[in-house]
Amino acid sequence: MDFWFTETVNDTVGNTIKIKKRIFSGRSDFQKIEVLDAYHYGRTLILEGSVQLTEKDEFTYHEMISHIPLFTHPHPEHVLVIGGGDGGTIREVMKHSTVTRAKLVEIDPLVIEKSKQFLSFVSCEMDNPRVEVIIQDGIQYVKPYTGIFDVILIDSTDPVGPATGLYQKEFFQDVHKALKDDGIMVAQSESPFFDQQIVRELYTTLKPLFPIRKMYLAPVPSYPSGLWSFVFCSKKYDPILDNRCEDLRRLNLNMRYYNEAVHQAAFAIPNFIQELIA
Amino acid sequence: MDFWFTETVNDTVGNTIKIKKRIFSGRSDFQKIEVLDAYHYGRTLILEGSVQLTEKDEFTYHEMISHIPLFTHPHPEHVLVIGGGDGGTIREVMKHSTVTRAKLVEIDPLVIEKSKQFLSFVSCEMDNPRVEVIIQDGIQYVKPYTGIFDVILIDSTDPVGPATGLYQKEFFQDVHKALKDDGIMVAQSESPFFDQQIVRELYTTLKPLFPIRKMYLAPVPSYPSGLWSFVFCSKKYDPILDNRCEDLRRLNLNMRYYNEAVHQAAFAIPNFIQELIA
Repeated sequence: MDFWFTETVNDTVGNTIKIKKRIFSGRSDFQKIEVLDAYHYGRTLILEGSVQLTEKDEFTYHEMISHIPLFTHPHPEHVLVIGGGDGGTIREVMKHSTVTRAKLVEIDPLVIEKSKQFLSFVSCEMDNPRVEVIIQDGIQYVKPYTGIFDVILIDSTDPVGPATGLYQKEFFQDVHKALKDDGIMVAQSESPFFDQQIVRELYTTLKPLFPIRKMYLAPVPSYPSGLWSFVFCSKKYDPILDNRCEDLRRLNLNMRYYNEAVHQAAFAIPNFIQELIA
Repeated sequence: MDFWFTETVNDTVGNTIKIKKRIFSGRSDFQKIEVLDAYHYGRTLILEGSVQLTEKDEFTYHEMISHIPLFTHPHPEHVLVIGGGDGGTIREVMKHSTVTRAKLVEIDPLVIEKSKQFLSFVSCEMDNPRVEVIIQDGIQYVKPYTGIFDVILIDSTDPVGPATGLYQKEFFQDVHKALKDDGIMVAQSESPFFDQQIVRELYTTLKPLFPIRKMYLAPVPSYPSGLWSFVFCSKKYDPILDNRCEDLRRLNLNMRYYNEAVHQAAFAIPNFIQELIA
């Protein structure tokens, strides 16, 4: 039976999508998990009432969280993804043959289970032998490590519930320590239109930690406001000056959003957003 | 009394906004016109159920439809805006002191009247002595002119109802003829996510008419999908090679979205959109 699913922000504005069928609905130890089949967007993963990904438009987010850092680092081998239990980010990371070991640390095993069961378009690389899936809180996971990761990707949910600690200074200090001396961290950093206070605080928190710290943007129609931001934090490499986009040309990877021009353009920040993160 | 206004596309996906107050609702000879006061977006103009602009986010659309061509043309003097009866585009055009004459040709006088009455943040420059407001169908208006405009901006509604003819080949041929030999036309060209058939047809229509024809993009959260496209059509000047963004630095204009980096970046087109307009 058809119904409309609506996600609102601050009870004032929202996205609404027409659903063909509820495929799964349940509650894990951490959150409410729903998998819906939507008319426009296809299969859709919703955690605590927030759309995490849809079959139709997940490519913009997953390509951009992954390829911007992985086509900046000169030779990424050891990659850590925190969150992202659906597998979409790992799927993109696996396109890089330099990556010999990728770890996916997800707190909620039910997200992984349901993604494998119902969302094969994102979960398809989770059983790749180069991937190790670890069920643990990412905050605890990174603590003991020093200087071992080339790239760390924070593919978290919004800063409520289980993800709150992923926006705290202590966690980012641990991430910084876990990275090699030329390591890169990228974190999703919410909507620059709708989540301005979160964006402002996050960039203030990160300021003292990384010498290179730049926002980049990508459209995600199924997310609130349709525009999403990411923060690129780096100890050495600059995403514009040091990018290896020339490698992209000969690799013939299957990309639907990302290309060389998009890599550069994503870092062009409109005036009203510059004011937020100055 | 609070209520939610929802705009859907293809009856499968939509934006919903919480409204404080209905300020005006009426029907002109051409369309249903509503002015609502929304919690998040402030004053909002809706024509035939489609959001045209909101107080909170209209700046992205109006800055981008105007300044991309006006900071490409080396000396824009005579500018024609077709549609845009709210005045937002003309407001941005007036920031260019080179523009000695700007004509706003709007088919629906009630749009102008209600914008002047309720939407002063966009209509504020309509009484500027450099602006001439003409109530006429833009399709008929351009027909007799040959080689007189530097820049023509097509600020139309969706291709249904009164705006249908603004997407036809005959109209664009007339626009081409009305432009000087180094003239530029920019038209809004819908969502590259949700209106792919319209985008594909529009770019096919324009292909034989202008030697330089490039898409550019801007986010508009209150529009379907949150990402909007524009087509830049030019007889001579290229928006990347010939842009005058260096002038922007010394002009100290009040811009909230547009800047030099954004001008260049807006023309970076993701792969899936390149396939639409190839």
